[in-house]
Amino acid sequence: MKLGVPRGIRDLDPELYEFMEFVRDEFKAASRLFGFRLTEPASLEFLSTLEIKGGPSIRDEIYAFKDKSGRDVALRFDLTVGMARYVASRRGLPLPLKLASFSSSWRYDEPQYGRYRWFYQWDVEIFGPKDVLADAEVIEFTHELHRRIGLDLKVRIGDRRMTEGYIRGLGVEEGRKVLDLMRAIDKLDKKSESEVKEEYVAKGYEAKLLDSVLALSKVKGGLEAIDRVREFVEPTRELLDLFDLLKGKGLDPILDMGVVRGLDYYDSLVFEVFDEEEAGLGAVAGGGRYDVLMKEFGRPELGATGAAGGVDRLILSLKRRGLSPKALETVVVAYTSGLEVEASKLVSRLRADGIACEMDPFRRSLRKQLELASKKARYVVIVAPRELEEGLYVLRDMKSGEELKLDYRNLVGALTRNV
Amino acid sequence: MKLGVPRGIRDLDPELYEFMEFVRDEFKAASRLFGFRLTEPASLEFLSTLEIKGGPSIRDEIYAFKDKSGRDVALRFDLTVGMARYVASRRGLPLPLKLASFSSSWRYDEPQYGRYRWFYQWDVEIFGPKDVLADAEVIEFTHELHRRIGLDLKVRIGDRRMTEGYIRGLGVEEGRKVLDLMRAIDKLDKKSESEVKEEYVAKGYEAKLLDSVLALSKVKGGLEAIDRVREFVEPTRELLDLFDLLKGKGLDPILDMGVVRGLDYYDSLVFEVFDEEEAGLGAVAGGGRYDVLMKEFGRPELGATGAAGGVDRLILSLKRRGLSPKALETVVVAYTSGLEVEASKLVSRLRADGIACEMDPFRRSLRKQLELASKKARYVVIVAPRELEEGLYVLRDMKSGEELKLDYRNLVGALTRNV
Repeated sequence: MKLGVPRGIRDLDPELYEFMEFVRDEFKAASRLFGFRLTEPASLEFLSTLEIKGGPSIRDEIYAFKDKSGRDVALRFDLTVGMARYVASRRGLPLPLKLASFSSSWRYDEPQYGRYRWFYQWDVEIFGPKDVLADAEVIEFTHELHRRIGLDLKVRIGDRRMTEGYIRGLGVEEGRKVLDLMRAIDKLDKKSESEVKEEYVAKGYEAKLLDSVLALSKVKGGLEAIDRVREFVEPTRELLDLFDLLKGKGLDPILDMGVVRGLDYYDSLVFEVFDEEEAGLGAVAGGGRYDVLMKEFGRPELGATGAAGGVDRLILSLKRRGLSPKALETVVVAYTSGLEVEASKLVSRLRADGIACEMDPFRRSLRKQLELASKKARYVVIVAPRELEEGLYVLRDMKSGEELKLDYRNLVGALTRNV
Repeated sequence: MKLGVPRGIRDLDPELYEFMEFVRDEFKAASRLFGFRLTEPASLEFLSTLEIKGGPSIRDEIYAFKDKSGRDVALRFDLTVGMARYVASRRGLPLPLKLASFSSSWRYDEPQYGRYRWFYQWDVEIFGPKDVLADAEVIEFTHELHRRIGLDLKVRIGDRRMTEGYIRGLGVEEGRKVLDLMRAIDKLDKKSESEVKEEYVAKGYEAKLLDSVLALSKVKGGLEAIDRVREFVEPTRELLDLFDLLKGKGLDPILDMGVVRGLDYYDSLVFEVFDEEEAGLGAVAGGGRYDVLMKEFGRPELGATGAAGGVDRLILSLKRRGLSPKALETVVVAYTSGLEVEASKLVSRLRADGIACEMDPFRRSLRKQLELASKKARYVVIVAPRELEEGLYVLRDMKSGEELKLDYRNLVGALTRNV
């Protein structure tokens, strides 16, 4: 029989998982430092919940099905919607509520390089305040997380209200069209300007209108760009305050009117972080404010802002830079035939003393065992009959070939010092 | 609108997640100590893979559906099958392969107290050897994991080949009937003996046969039970070797012929661990050898043995014993209105020095902030206008009410010593 897994789904093998744990550990440490509490939203949602902001077309992009009682359910497509639904459905939670999650989601996209149908994301959200202090916190967290894992990334910030106001100022009134034109900006990530123009002209938009919209999206830069953007549209108070706060935090944000975010639940400040050396990879993470989703969930009094990033893309960035988690050195206890129980006892005793070790469960020859052990460990302990009678173990340095005969106490000392 | 999640599915809220992380951290540490490498099998499998040992009836107990390309897929119902499928489908993996996973699975069961349709399990597996050394390793791991989280549990061991041999010796020849009678033993966990007998007599089995089968399942005890079991059936060589190995490791295993495990992929040695003080909760974890599954997956040369436990039941045990993960103390920086940017700067600086802290993004009154801060932190740092001019911060001990005015260096020193 042929054994496989569905397309776009895969096993997270030990090599990949080591990278994931490296990222997860730093995410946990940063969450603790910032006061975010770890959580995981429900893996399955009612389809109706996911359609609230995604619209009925979301059904085509996710794993939706009927459960055995005939209800329409779907696997979550991100962590934000579930956390927002959780907060919205409970009264009396202490505010602000700062939640973090490192979990997987599912999307029925076409699989591509570095993109899967089942994928892990990290995610932080602040529920309650409609204050730019919360946005600054989320952006600082995003920067800190990447700094910890060795990536000093640039934060690019936009404000959808500015883009929307500008598009409306160009004479576009219908909400659906405004959104459609915002999406044109988002598409510049993956397509050339002329491709996007062609697509939109074919849809019936005027070429001149497209030129004007795309002109705004090219305003990018440090503080001086805030002056330049005034030629198009007045910056919002929140955008200016956010830049002040981030400067105070030692960050060096970039205004980028090309950042609008693809997901429709964002409504004002939005941001993305880029590995400027690997700009072709696209944004490594992003987020923004989505008070409007809380309103749709029946809690208009709650503000919400957050950030999320894909773990696969982050690991690609790490690998390209040659960064990797440290491999663990393991002590292997070898034995000569007939001494298995003694070797097994020693393994247990060493573990009780905090020394990571294991023995060969295949009972292979000593030569074969030493050959295999040298691939994973620097030190090998040999349980040999004569030495055992004297209460001694043979400690072999696989690099130098040197051997020492030690009693248990000195063996532990040597392994603790050296390994 | 009403916001809910499908039945048996839930959000893992921050309180629960803290317990889960506590268990996960110990699981990771124990895995490292024993040389198991972390991994996660595919979340979605082809239904045909899951049916190999579960049979077509498994379809009724899991989340199975057709994906958009019309293929029959299903969410994994445990971690063992996916890891076995992964190992079976690859040639050239180094053996023994010791894999660990801490991940969630889905079953379309009737939800009960402590049982959900989406749940987390820990899991360790050793692929390659058909040697009892590997079974001993897995059992030692299970014991060590529970010891680390504060539960000193008893290991109960059975051997399905002994039970099967005994049942065949009673004159039952048809394989399907042998399995059916093994399941009668498994049912004693949840039902009384007379209920099980009644059910099987109704199915057409003789009452006397049932009495004989259930008599074997009552053989339980330490080493002396090995003598008693000889009245029914000869112990296997592997069972005797396993007891020797576990004694050498300082464990005190119990022979329990009532342990047969419900899942059909186990074929010889099986075990369960029980919280003897909470026997009513059932087994906290269990496992066994399933070489036959590797054979079904086309790799008859590979042995396989493993253990798994549900995280929810483990957390229930922890809570009943009053064990809990330590809460993190967080420093909250308060400010008077107008000093938000200064307070935000201080928060960033403290975090850079490794001190977990946060500020109120609601800009509430100082009185209100102090009231809320006292609920989560022992120490509060107040950024006040006059002190700030002198380069000082006010450190307030919320327990004693004592206040100190400190420059930044001394503030960090005080927080590092005290928090």
